[in-house]
Amino acid sequence: MKATYFDGKNMIYDENYPDPKLGETLVKVNLAGICGTDLEILDGYMAYNGILGHEFVGIVEKSENPELIGKRVVGEINAGCGACDYCEKGLDRHCPNRTVLGILKRDGAFAEYLSLPEKNLHVIPDSITDEQAVFVEPLAAAYEITEQVSLQPQWSVAVVGDGRLAQLIIQVLKQICPNLTCFGRHKSKLSSLINIGIKIKIGIESSDEQSFDLVVEATGSNSGFTDTMKLIKPRGTVVLKSTIASRKNLDLTPTVVNEITLVGSRCGLFKPAIDALSTGVVSVDSMIDSTYPLEKFSAAINYAKKPDTLKVFLKP
Amino acid sequence: MKATYFDGKNMIYDENYPDPKLGETLVKVNLAGICGTDLEILDGYMAYNGILGHEFVGIVEKSENPELIGKRVVGEINAGCGACDYCEKGLDRHCPNRTVLGILKRDGAFAEYLSLPEKNLHVIPDSITDEQAVFVEPLAAAYEITEQVSLQPQWSVAVVGDGRLAQLIIQVLKQICPNLTCFGRHKSKLSSLINIGIKIKIGIESSDEQSFDLVVEATGSNSGFTDTMKLIKPRGTVVLKSTIASRKNLDLTPTVVNEITLVGSRCGLFKPAIDALSTGVVSVDSMIDSTYPLEKFSAAINYAKKPDTLKVFLKP
Repeated sequence: MKATYFDGKNMIYDENYPDPKLGETLVKVNLAGICGTDLEILDGYMAYNGILGHEFVGIVEKSENPELIGKRVVGEINAGCGACDYCEKGLDRHCPNRTVLGILKRDGAFAEYLSLPEKNLHVIPDSITDEQAVFVEPLAAAYEITEQVSLQPQWSVAVVGDGRLAQLIIQVLKQICPNLTCFGRHKSKLSSLINIGIKIKIGIESSDEQSFDLVVEATGSNSGFTDTMKLIKPRGTVVLKSTIASRKNLDLTPTVVNEITLVGSRCGLFKPAIDALSTGVVSVDSMIDSTYPLEKFSAAINYAKKPDTLKVFLKP
Repeated sequence: MKATYFDGKNMIYDENYPDPKLGETLVKVNLAGICGTDLEILDGYMAYNGILGHEFVGIVEKSENPELIGKRVVGEINAGCGACDYCEKGLDRHCPNRTVLGILKRDGAFAEYLSLPEKNLHVIPDSITDEQAVFVEPLAAAYEITEQVSLQPQWSVAVVGDGRLAQLIIQVLKQICPNLTCFGRHKSKLSSLINIGIKIKIGIESSDEQSFDLVVEATGSNSGFTDTMKLIKPRGTVVLKSTIASRKNLDLTPTVVNEITLVGSRCGLFKPAIDALSTGVVSVDSMIDSTYPLEKFSAAINYAKKPDTLKVFLKP
């Protein structure tokens, strides 16, 4: 099959990459999204080798479940062992022996085909386009915050970052916490937030310091953590969304002195994300940028790295 | 009055230090304790100048409340402005304009006298000795964990550290979570824990990794955080108790990937601590080490710095 894979140093396009392994559901990829985590993996995060890509929509070609064949699906990216305490609680995403699509010991979506366990797949209603469906995975990661933190409507909330994930998080949180400010850097990205009534700020003023009950760090940079800790109130809650390859000289002393709670947050369940897209509670259309054919992966990745770029897609 | 003060470089003994300011309750210090935080301040933490010491017991000499005069008291160390949102909620310890006894803009207890607002003081019952009473402040810091985390009896709990604060935390947590292991370094300190039925370990084995629902970091060292993150389960809760002057090269990526919750924890309310000492639920007698006269502060601090030392007292 056609695929692009990462050998630890470079991305390589291969028309004769081996087909996905048997014994799982086989999905022909319609469209895949490039995510910040993909860019981090290219910088060494997770020491991953193989096909990248974990945001996708596709058509089921082979499955033990005949009802799935021909259906358009998205897929949860963590595949657990099925036997441990975490898997028994439905927390496959914390299974110590898990594989993760395009991230850990499992080939991803920047290819003609991928495979996943049947239970990972969710059928997408016709009302959701392919481009919109690719957002289900990052939108689920945004909804994960609502599973972990008991959000209070009266809270003053800040989201640090204005990228793709930050914008999804803002749309999710504002449903419960309308008093929400985005601290960003890129005017072009922030304009779409103004249209949905979000307060936006470029840079932190002294009156912003220690004034938010909840701050979500979604920048993917070290400076994002520093800004976050400036904004959070004593006894407040910080949600950490960025997985970045290295962080240096972090000082946790203010966390102790001000009794901050830091909540690490990663992948979420797909159902609330699919519901939100199909009902229009969350809109991703302003975040759709460009689509490249799979062969042009190199140009697509270079474009995705630019600060003003929104979601970039690869089409096999 | 007699006092020892820190000028930013050295501790200095002064027989003619100015008396505490008027307008607050005046306490003649019976006994003060040397705490890890004092040793950190001497290394530059908080950039504090003045009289150190925040663990004490003493007798009220002057007060606007005549009922307090002559009473034996301990004192909450944070003095808030009394007007802000935090003070209104009883969270003086997070008031942005607070002073803190012997730590922030307020002379401490390594002196003949100290002053505090009347509402900070708690009368100590006769059943508690002076040495025991000095433990109320650190014991309240241990009880703070029970205010912040909803402890579950079935949890597997680890405390990293075997010093004075760690031992108090262990006694508090084991009342709710009997399945408790202490990871320490000093056999002499760990022996008293064996006597109260705590599992102790020197060094982390591979079977300990990612096996605790709650881990409390109370070592006061950078390596303590690394050990803590090895022990905690995915989705587990870490309580951070150490305020240390610098932390370097911390990596929070595992916090995000494993969705750990980190809870910074500092000072607590005194009432549960006084109740625990007076009813004998917590025993501190095995942690009492030596008492030095105030003039011998230098020898006392050098002794307190030794790894096997337990609580050292100064008597003005």
